[in-house]
Amino acid sequence: MRALLWDGAQARVTDCPRPQPGSDIALVRVALAGICNTDLELVKGYMQFRGVLGHEFVGVVEDGPNEWRAQRVVGEINFGCNRCDVCRRGLQRHCPSRRVMGILNADGAFAELVAVPIENLHRVPDGVPDDAAVFVEPLAAAFEILEQVHVIPGTACIVVGDGKLGLLAAQVLHQAGAQVLAVGKHDDKLAILRKREIETKILQNWNGAPAELVVEATGSAAGFAAALAATKPRGTLVLKSTVAEATQLNLAPLVINEITVVGSRCGNFAQALRALDAGSIDVQSLISARFALRDAVDALQRAAAPGVLKVLLHPDA
Amino acid sequence: MRALLWDGAQARVTDCPRPQPGSDIALVRVALAGICNTDLELVKGYMQFRGVLGHEFVGVVEDGPNEWRAQRVVGEINFGCNRCDVCRRGLQRHCPSRRVMGILNADGAFAELVAVPIENLHRVPDGVPDDAAVFVEPLAAAFEILEQVHVIPGTACIVVGDGKLGLLAAQVLHQAGAQVLAVGKHDDKLAILRKREIETKILQNWNGAPAELVVEATGSAAGFAAALAATKPRGTLVLKSTVAEATQLNLAPLVINEITVVGSRCGNFAQALRALDAGSIDVQSLISARFALRDAVDALQRAAAPGVLKVLLHPDA
Repeated sequence: MRALLWDGAQARVTDCPRPQPGSDIALVRVALAGICNTDLELVKGYMQFRGVLGHEFVGVVEDGPNEWRAQRVVGEINFGCNRCDVCRRGLQRHCPSRRVMGILNADGAFAELVAVPIENLHRVPDGVPDDAAVFVEPLAAAFEILEQVHVIPGTACIVVGDGKLGLLAAQVLHQAGAQVLAVGKHDDKLAILRKREIETKILQNWNGAPAELVVEATGSAAGFAAALAATKPRGTLVLKSTVAEATQLNLAPLVINEITVVGSRCGNFAQALRALDAGSIDVQSLISARFALRDAVDALQRAAAPGVLKVLLHPDA
Repeated sequence: MRALLWDGAQARVTDCPRPQPGSDIALVRVALAGICNTDLELVKGYMQFRGVLGHEFVGVVEDGPNEWRAQRVVGEINFGCNRCDVCRRGLQRHCPSRRVMGILNADGAFAELVAVPIENLHRVPDGVPDDAAVFVEPLAAAFEILEQVHVIPGTACIVVGDGKLGLLAAQVLHQAGAQVLAVGKHDDKLAILRKREIETKILQNWNGAPAELVVEATGSAAGFAAALAATKPRGTLVLKSTVAEATQLNLAPLVINEITVVGSRCGNFAQALRALDAGSIDVQSLISARFALRDAVDALQRAAAPGVLKVLLHPDA
């Protein structure tokens, strides 16, 4: 089958072995896949990953247990061992020996077919089109904030960064009742939020007044310092960016202002699917471009270009 | 009066103007003062402070409102404006226009006399000797952890660093019911904790097994990375060190493991005084040396030497 393979030096579309189904593994034919900033970090060396890239997808089960055949599905990306204490607490996404689709010891979804453990599958409600369902993984990462931080309705909240995750986080927090201000560099991206009655500011016009709750979604190591400065004393800073490089940081302001920094990664899919089914989060406005799988290398390049939001990969015709 | 003055280039004992009392300011004759690591950071340039150093003290009110005269007191070090929203919430120590004794725009206690706002004073119970009362400020900083983090009895907790604050934090957490492991470099310091039935390990013999709750009290910028590695996924890392220099940090592990980092600084004095009155925390074993105020420069040097814990300053005879 065709897939986008990263060998540690080069990303190329090539012929890869067809993954194997099993009693607890489904083979999913990918209908649509999305490129995430993490994919762009991986091809810069993050996680030292080698294999088929891609962890955002929607597809149809082609092979696997009967009850799943022909079902339209999405799949959680962390594959836990299900034997350790962490998995037993339902935190497979923190299993110390986990594999992660397209990120750590497991092939990903920029391919014709992807292998997914049955327990990671979620059926997609009929009312949710593929163009929306493909956003379930990043949207779940935005909902993760509500699992980690008690967002009291009315809380003043600043989301720094108007990339994909920033736009999703701003909407999730707005929906949860927070008083959101989204700060970014691109007026056309922020316009997506203004249509949802969310206040926005272009970075250079922002007065920097701090808030109780700040979400850092800049995707850059430098974003941390800016977000820290925007957090009130005793406030909470949610850190979303995973970047490969280290950066020069002074943590004294964190101690002096007694700020709580919450590292935040993947979330449960159930809440995200529910929001997509209700149509309460606008994800489809985030689609910037579409490519066929055979042109996946060009697609990666486009996704890395300034101002581009979600780039989708379609099966080859 | 005699005082230890830091002019930005040199610390020297010199004659300074006597501070002025007022209707809401008491003049306290210092009976005993303690040197903190923050003092050592200040003379390296931290906070760009200029003035009389010192913020740990016990003394007797010499001048001020009648009801406070001749009282033996300690004093909280953050002087809030008492007009802003932060002060109204009782968080004077986070007032944006606060002064801080011996640290920010307020002269300190390495002097014969120190000026302290009345509202910052606490009477010292008769059963608490000066040698113990002088520890109330750092002990309050250790109790601050309990105000910020819900320490469930039985929680596994690692305290990294066997300096003064590490030894106090380990005892406070042990007293709160946590299962504490203190990790440090000095067996003679850790022995103080073993006498209190607290488990200890010399850093090089430690297997590094992570815990739910970790307190970083190394006093070094590099301590953060070590403490982060010792924190379980979804665990909490309390950061206590304020250091002047920035350091190279990779925050990706914080995001991947969804760790919560809690910056932690000064605490309320009431809990600390209560613990000293009950004799439940051993502070006096932390006294390494005593100097007269006239020899305060030598005292600073001694406090900076490896292996030294608390250095106290007595009034000149």
